Amino acid sequence: MTRTLLLSLALLVSVEAAHAQSKPSLADQYADAAARIIGATLVSNTAYDNLAYLSDRVGHRISGSPQLDAAIQWAVERMKADGFENVHTEPVMVPHWVRGAESAELISPVKRPLVILGLGGTVGTPPDGITADVVEVTNWEQLDALGEKVKGKIVLYNHPMKPSGFGAYGEAVAYRGAGASRAAKYGAVAALVRSVTTVSLRTPHTGGMGYADNVPKIPAAAVTIEDAETIHRMLGRGEKVTVALKLGAQTLPDVQSANVIGELRGREKPDEVVVIGGHLDSWDVGTGSTDDGGGCIAAMEVVNVLKRLNLRPRRTIRVVLWTNEENGGRGAAGYGNAHKDELIRHVLAMESDAGVSRPYGLSAGAKDSTKAAKVLATAREIAVLLRGIGIEQVQPGGGGSDTGPILNGGAAGISVLVDDTHYFDVHHTMADTMDKISPINLSLNVAAAAVVSYIVADMPERIGE
Amino acid sequence: MTRTLLLSLALLVSVEAAHAQSKPSLADQYADAAARIIGATLVSNTAYDNLAYLSDRVGHRISGSPQLDAAIQWAVERMKADGFENVHTEPVMVPHWVRGAESAELISPVKRPLVILGLGGTVGTPPDGITADVVEVTNWEQLDALGEKVKGKIVLYNHPMKPSGFGAYGEAVAYRGAGASRAAKYGAVAALVRSVTTVSLRTPHTGGMGYADNVPKIPAAAVTIEDAETIHRMLGRGEKVTVALKLGAQTLPDVQSANVIGELRGREKPDEVVVIGGHLDSWDVGTGSTDDGGGCIAAMEVVNVLKRLNLRPRRTIRVVLWTNEENGGRGAAGYGNAHKDELIRHVLAMESDAGVSRPYGLSAGAKDSTKAAKVLATAREIAVLLRGIGIEQVQPGGGGSDTGPILNGGAAGISVLVDDTHYFDVHHTMADTMDKISPINLSLNVAAAAVVSYIVADMPERIGE
Repeated sequence: MTRTLLLSLALLVSVEAAHAQSKPSLADQYADAAARIIGATLVSNTAYDNLAYLSDRVGHRISGSPQLDAAIQWAVERMKADGFENVHTEPVMVPHWVRGAESAELISPVKRPLVILGLGGTVGTPPDGITADVVEVTNWEQLDALGEKVKGKIVLYNHPMKPSGFGAYGEAVAYRGAGASRAAKYGAVAALVRSVTTVSLRTPHTGGMGYADNVPKIPAAAVTIEDAETIHRMLGRGEKVTVALKLGAQTLPDVQSANVIGELRGREKPDEVVVIGGHLDSWDVGTGSTDDGGGCIAAMEVVNVLKRLNLRPRRTIRVVLWTNEENGGRGAAGYGNAHKDELIRHVLAMESDAGVSRPYGLSAGAKDSTKAAKVLATAREIAVLLRGIGIEQVQPGGGGSDTGPILNGGAAGISVLVDDTHYFDVHHTMADTMDKISPINLSLNVAAAAVVSYIVADMPERIGE
Repeated sequence: MTRTLLLSLALLVSVEAAHAQSKPSLADQYADAAARIIGATLVSNTAYDNLAYLSDRVGHRISGSPQLDAAIQWAVERMKADGFENVHTEPVMVPHWVRGAESAELISPVKRPLVILGLGGTVGTPPDGITADVVEVTNWEQLDALGEKVKGKIVLYNHPMKPSGFGAYGEAVAYRGAGASRAAKYGAVAALVRSVTTVSLRTPHTGGMGYADNVPKIPAAAVTIEDAETIHRMLGRGEKVTVALKLGAQTLPDVQSANVIGELRGREKPDEVVVIGGHLDSWDVGTGSTDDGGGCIAAMEVVNVLKRLNLRPRRTIRVVLWTNEENGGRGAAGYGNAHKDELIRHVLAMESDAGVSRPYGLSAGAKDSTKAAKVLATAREIAVLLRGIGIEQVQPGGGGSDTGPILNGGAAGISVLVDDTHYFDVHHTMADTMDKISPINLSLNVAAAAVVSYIVADMPERIGE
């Protein structure tokens, strides 16, 4: 390295430092707006009341159900009544899986009902059900070691979820997703999967599963921790365990559904878009208050709060309520297709689909690593304004399942990180209901998302550039 | 007070002090036995395995059910196989309430199933059910203020249980016990009672209820916290809430059941009896592992451990597994009647019916207050040997529901106090299952009960005298 180059670098650094000193930070520029947003959010009950209404009056809303249609209609009407701009739906075809009647019963060593939920996407059993002996495995290695010995049997995947949160979920959910086909490859006639949770009051958890090609499709259902452990003890005593399983599930032809969209149009660059949203569909149990009613309502409330404060940012904030996140992802793909020419003008995508419990951080990034670093730096600047409401860390990330196509198009992604310790206690169960929602935590989610989305939509530079 | 009296008192005190010094404490006398009992208990899995077998193979066992008969038969065979002495059953007539099919559904403002459990002892509805609007109260004062306004309505008692344990249960359970008749007095047609718990995954809790004389008997069912809160929000929004309730419950003629008895006969005073036990019946949901399988199995294991160690105490230790604690108390009354001439030779009664979670203390007493103080003092001496397994306090008490007639006969009572923080999470639910039992806590309950009952059965003096 030459002295001249060193000198140039030194000059450059000092010029940049001087520039940094002269230019106010995002936190300085937006302190007043953030304070108004946080205050207006925390003083309001609108988000809680809206989520209660969606939970109580619409309830669960699986793809293809009249309840999902009702939720879509309600969201459109709500946005219009609240003065959102450009409110409309964008049609998408979605899978139409229906549960039907279902039951399971221990036949041996005693007759006793088991508490189950068929997995989303499972085939049904014959009308008389399937009755077979149960073989237990706790992981793939044990399944593979048994091999053809599971032929004609029901395989129970009794794999305990580690405590707790998304990492543990990701590890344990593999058996729910792929267990049926991997057992069917060896000739099993059905699969039972221990519910992916660490907490149970005899509570079955449904969720998506898929079938591999070229393997018979066998029925699959979730059992409770209690019943999985009962079968485990019975087998441990050398008792023959026989289960009769009846699932009335079927997959009907695809039906039309829709993403719901409403905007706060930008005052200077309305064609540049910050997307915030959640998925409006749920599983067909509980009321989908946590997964993902809270994410949808929080996104809607961001616009409500900004409108209440007359804060119209430079760019457009677009609320997107995706359809069919749970069993198809067709809403996300549909949005990506419908907006593919516009994706380049998507500045930021924020998705809330991890519950609306206590927020503790932000994750931020982008597909391109150089851009990702800049997005992370901006998130850190913004986070200074959110320390007081508990945002204590900023880490790389920012992805999401519904925002995937937007992030693939190059947009920045920022997520509000929330405490996920108890998220999977009620995930995909009949206990995902309104009482699990903390009003203050819901408001803190709104406040964090509103501050981030407003600043990114309003700041002069495009984030990540 | 004269000088002579003072002198006499001083002499008395010094004589007693000398006597106390010369006489070894119970802790000194029984340190070796206690150590052997604790070691033998903690090294063994028998109690856990027995409770698992009772839970898995017999399951729940309400009065009048074939399962209760099976449990009685199993306990007799188990005691005989384990070498208990004087193993027999003592017949008692018990109520025969059956649940039948039941369901509840919101009809207005939306159609949606409610999760319920009919209360034990409830009458059924007409076959087509009862459909009526719901009026919510949170306490008796609100009910009385409404008065005749509840005529023709379903009264929802939405009284939250305070966190947590037996004190909170005692306060909240009043609405379950008496709610139906108090609402019927004002013309209500049915009662729904918020489940008595602080934790719920859409989990209804059944339990006993009673009807007042001269008031129409109306059906009563427990609803979940979730559903009670949903109805609360609906009513708060001014929505009309209508529920259709169908209960197939009926009370059939009394049937014969039995208390199960087995002994470790005393080596010197076999006619003096220390009773330890729990109740073998349960509600008709879950597997009654906590309420009160654990109490029964712990009592049986006390004798197993003493037999394993060849520790035969001076007096008889009698295991009593009462029938019908949950909905009648006929087992307790039957024991009292059958043994009324012998009650005077009942030295101590120990009942375990608060779960077998972590033991932290002893409660001790007797009907007579002078005797109660002596019993408490003895319990304190014994507790010294149990500090190492977590027994940190001794307090007045020692009562029980099944030991009532024995204590009324004058016997001392000692109970092992256990952490009841989570007892009511699963109490009277389908989630009262084996997985809620901690093996080490079960063993610690056995160890504490074995040390107390052995010492009291063996010590030269009769406790409390």
